[in-house]
Amino acid sequence: MDKYDDKYIVSRLKELRQLTPALYGKDFLLTWEQSMDTLRAVMLTAEIMQALHWRKAPFRIFDYGLGISIFRDNSTRTRFSFASAMSALGLTLSELDEVKSQIAHGETVRETANMISFLTEVIGIRDDMYLGEGHSYMQEVAEAVTDGFAHGVLAQRPTLVNLQCDLDHPTQSISDLLKLKDYFGGWDALRGKKIAMSWAYSPSYGKPLSVPQGVINLMTRLGMNVVLAYPEGYDLVPQTIISAQTFADQSGGDFRITHSMAEAFADADVVYPKSWAPMAVMQQRTELLKNRDKDGLAALEKQCLAENARHMDWECTEAMMKLTRAGNALYEHCLPADISGVSCAQGEVSQAVFEKYRLHTYQEAGYKPFVIAAMVFVSKLQDPASKLQRFYHLSSDVPL
Amino acid sequence: MDKYDDKYIVSRLKELRQLTPALYGKDFLLTWEQSMDTLRAVMLTAEIMQALHWRKAPFRIFDYGLGISIFRDNSTRTRFSFASAMSALGLTLSELDEVKSQIAHGETVRETANMISFLTEVIGIRDDMYLGEGHSYMQEVAEAVTDGFAHGVLAQRPTLVNLQCDLDHPTQSISDLLKLKDYFGGWDALRGKKIAMSWAYSPSYGKPLSVPQGVINLMTRLGMNVVLAYPEGYDLVPQTIISAQTFADQSGGDFRITHSMAEAFADADVVYPKSWAPMAVMQQRTELLKNRDKDGLAALEKQCLAENARHMDWECTEAMMKLTRAGNALYEHCLPADISGVSCAQGEVSQAVFEKYRLHTYQEAGYKPFVIAAMVFVSKLQDPASKLQRFYHLSSDVPL
Amino acid sequence: MDKYDDKYIVSRLKELRQLTPALYGKDFLLTWEQSMDTLRAVMLTAEIMQALHWRKAPFRIFDYGLGISIFRDNSTRTRFSFASAMSALGLTLSELDEVKSQIAHGETVRETANMISFLTEVIGIRDDMYLGEGHSYMQEVAEAVTDGFAHGVLAQRPTLVNLQCDLDHPTQSISDLLKLKDYFGGWDALRGKKIAMSWAYSPSYGKPLSVPQGVINLMTRLGMNVVLAYPEGYDLVPQTIISAQTFADQSGGDFRITHSMAEAFADADVVYPKSWAPMAVMQQRTELLKNRDKDGLAALEKQCLAENARHMDWECTEAMMKLTRAGNALYEHCLPADISGVSCAQGEVSQAVFEKYRLHTYQEAGYKPFVIAAMVFVSKLQDPASKLQRFYHLSSDVPL
Repeated sequence: MDKYDDKYIVSRLKELRQLTPALYGKDFLLTWEQSMDTLRAVMLTAEIMQALHWRKAPFRIFDYGLGISIFRDNSTRTRFSFASAMSALGLTLSELDEVKSQIAHGETVRETANMISFLTEVIGIRDDMYLGEGHSYMQEVAEAVTDGFAHGVLAQRPTLVNLQCDLDHPTQSISDLLKLKDYFGGWDALRGKKIAMSWAYSPSYGKPLSVPQGVINLMTRLGMNVVLAYPEGYDLVPQTIISAQTFADQSGGDFRITHSMAEAFADADVVYPKSWAPMAVMQQRTELLKNRDKDGLAALEKQCLAENARHMDWECTEAMMKLTRAGNALYEHCLPADISGVSCAQGEVSQAVFEKYRLHTYQEAGYKPFVIAAMVFVSKLQDPASKLQRFYHLSSDVPL
Repeated sequence: MDKYDDKYIVSRLKELRQLTPALYGKDFLLTWEQSMDTLRAVMLTAEIMQALHWRKAPFRIFDYGLGISIFRDNSTRTRFSFASAMSALGLTLSELDEVKSQIAHGETVRETANMISFLTEVIGIRDDMYLGEGHSYMQEVAEAVTDGFAHGVLAQRPTLVNLQCDLDHPTQSISDLLKLKDYFGGWDALRGKKIAMSWAYSPSYGKPLSVPQGVINLMTRLGMNVVLAYPEGYDLVPQTIISAQTFADQSGGDFRITHSMAEAFADADVVYPKSWAPMAVMQQRTELLKNRDKDGLAALEKQCLAENARHMDWECTEAMMKLTRAGNALYEHCLPADISGVSCAQGEVSQAVFEKYRLHTYQEAGYKPFVIAAMVFVSKLQDPASKLQRFYHLSSDVPL
Repeated sequence: MDKYDDKYIVSRLKELRQLTPALYGKDFLLTWEQSMDTLRAVMLTAEIMQALHWRKAPFRIFDYGLGISIFRDNSTRTRFSFASAMSALGLTLSELDEVKSQIAHGETVRETANMISFLTEVIGIRDDMYLGEGHSYMQEVAEAVTDGFAHGVLAQRPTLVNLQCDLDHPTQSISDLLKLKDYFGGWDALRGKKIAMSWAYSPSYGKPLSVPQGVINLMTRLGMNVVLAYPEGYDLVPQTIISAQTFADQSGGDFRITHSMAEAFADADVVYPKSWAPMAVMQQRTELLKNRDKDGLAALEKQCLAENARHMDWECTEAMMKLTRAGNALYEHCLPADISGVSCAQGEVSQAVFEKYRLHTYQEAGYKPFVIAAMVFVSKLQDPASKLQRFYHLSSDVPL
């Protein structure tokens, strides 16, 4: 595409060179642990990689090594995004299937983490089912490989990438943000823009909290006007509310909570209607899952679906969209959406609204492979800009 | 092997250069949709790749990217053939396991196809269980990535390769044909040769129709004398009969149907005895599978096995082989064969006949990785001959 | 690490050049089938590869091709070691999942072995559950690809690597030995050192015999003083006892059996306390598994666990370690260990002892990827030393 011309790449390289990211040798677990320079460096790197990809130019940095994924929940787009990123970086994809491994034999996380890492450069983990545990598990793995690397067990310390935990879904929220940057035309254009991160009805339950928590904690850092909307009772983890408020204060943006979808949508520039389970339910569910309490889980599901059903009016319809700025807010979603009349009788979004924004949501998802690759790139290289510059020059030497 | 000498490669390159294949940017789903030039280009490319492989010479065309397989039925040889082709072309192998993916969450084919394709160059699909659906599914995926590519969602359009559907099994039939070409000594030698594509008894049921349908629609295009033999009632899909007849008429070959295995074998140069289920049974089975009707499936299986058992004399025995030209026809099979006394009490072929031709069937299967790689190669390159020529020259510079 | 300096690599290259390994074009199934020169060549190659890896220097020898693993039992460290080795050598990892393949359709081993091997360079197999069968299965696969290669079906003969069978676990025992070489400072330092390969209590049953059998048959070849200790009844396969005795006689080492853990530990330089099931139990278990006799298996398990429980004093405690040379023997284990109070109430080793040697056991495991890669390297190259020399020179040209 003409979009990815020399100017596109060169301007981003220039901006990247002025940043001092602090990710080298470290992991990417939560966006709110990262500095703005680190976040910007990851995003610029992702954009440059995407542009190189459209030019069919490689950006491989490894001769060999493993990129391991550990999926403790189902996944399509993140699974293939991770595979794509590993392929582009030059790593061999390998999946840790906890059922086939000897973890069943009572192995500790510390040991397993080292045993799989002798030639491993990246470990991507999805662990979003158990509130209070996903992030802790990633920290445990991180400490284990730090220890192994420090003591000469590992020749290199694998970079951990959070592919969704109980707290954050950084590869998603950064993709969401890159879409906004592209749509509105740069970081500065986002300042003051209103985004409605809203709960929406779904006939399923147990959806993780990581997407809304991730979105409110990232968009507030760009000076956006972030409104979180949900029916009373569908609370998020309190610490993520506090940090979102702090970020808004620091950036000159705004953050507030409402219990009306309509109020959130009013004059919004962006809407992100998406279902999740109340924190209290996720906590109960975690206990029940740990105890393998099938009856308890069935009862909880029944109770939650009944509660959900009281809020079927929380649907992103054309009428609801009319409330947004010029009736024309951008619709975002992490996909797959529960589309009324398509994937369920009634769900998060009407078919007409979804179809209008479908290609936008696909493009939003399309950043993810490059975001994952960029996290690894910025973690592995002390000077990512120079390396990208070299790839760019190589791509310019050949006929495109 | 001495066979793959410079002359072998150079003569094929010369022939390839004179063709105008029409596969560039397109998919390979059904042989009967492809022109003879396309088919010949794929076959010549496969032969040249195989020769390069025997010289340990690479023919990689990608720096990175995914080659995704979707297997909706079991597979060994096609699975590893696909993996081998992806490896040789430089792609990272990735498998879409529909159980682990979020397809369970009600995602549409259109969305999934795009979500997995951001860095994907090839999608190989096996979907042969549901008559009337496998090919349609591939078309749906093809339309989805065409749409995503056209609208700037995808930087490249993945090439679809049919790894067996309800209608055709092109990587198999082309491998079968390449074996014939090699065995008889060229395209021209096939003209007028008689091939008996015959049903054979098997103590199992539900085998797809794609192999016989693929064989009769490909061999007729080379001017062969194709006889399709089966017990009354074991009909194939009507459109594939009509097209085979048309191809025979066009090529100056012959096509006819008989209900006697002996008649088909009489003076045959090639025999291909292979079991399949009657179309009507496959249609009923498709309905029962969709409805998860276990009792219905069990009843249908029982009825079919009883019907099959009435035709246990449809076995490729030494006596049957004596009827063929000089008692010495070439035996072909897509493998695994139901071998009497080996894999079942009584089956498609006697142990003596199979053992006599065993290595031939292995060589027949051995074309498949190269056929898959060739389909991708001819789909991705506007001038495949020049690229192959370059690989050949590189291979000649190094000591072999 | 400074350890892997030029001197480290150069001295090993020099030693390697003086050897005449006999593995070219062959498989690595049992250490006791290999000459000392072959074993030393594999170990030196593994050490050099590991040093190259610490320098981030590649040692890839393939442009493309498959490295296939067949795991008939669970695995973590061996699975990822194999994946790592394939990645470093330049091969595409592919796993044969016997459930998804058409083996269910009654295919023979001979046929499957060839069908998966058209572009395959390595086949790694774990088959340790069935006493009397694992090694035979590997031999069957080996014969099949030898046959296919001889008859022009395969362009290359895949190298088989035993990833644990019923008799031996060579990638483990060689890793164990490399750790000893490193710890004590060379081959010569091992001569006369006492190693106690001892049974230890575990609250599980059915653990394979391959580790103790592998250890006693490898350490005896280096002139070590090998003591095998186990409670009466926990016998190993007789042929492995006879061969260990023969190796000890030939090397000037020593081999004997005792039924006292304390006696084995007395003045030992190395201890290897590890549970296994008695050979007689494994034979019964093999029959029961083959017959899918669930009740029989449950009864056998109950009986064995009761027998095990009579030997709970066979635990590697601090008191037991005090008996060793200066109370300071090296503790080895193939991992995961049954650690008392960690992975079970009471097991093979106390937490204090394990924790003291934990990093040593991790380093021991860390050799495995390089051992697997070295087996393939020495099997594929007629002159492995020259190729490694070239990789070393390339690594010296770039800033480390």
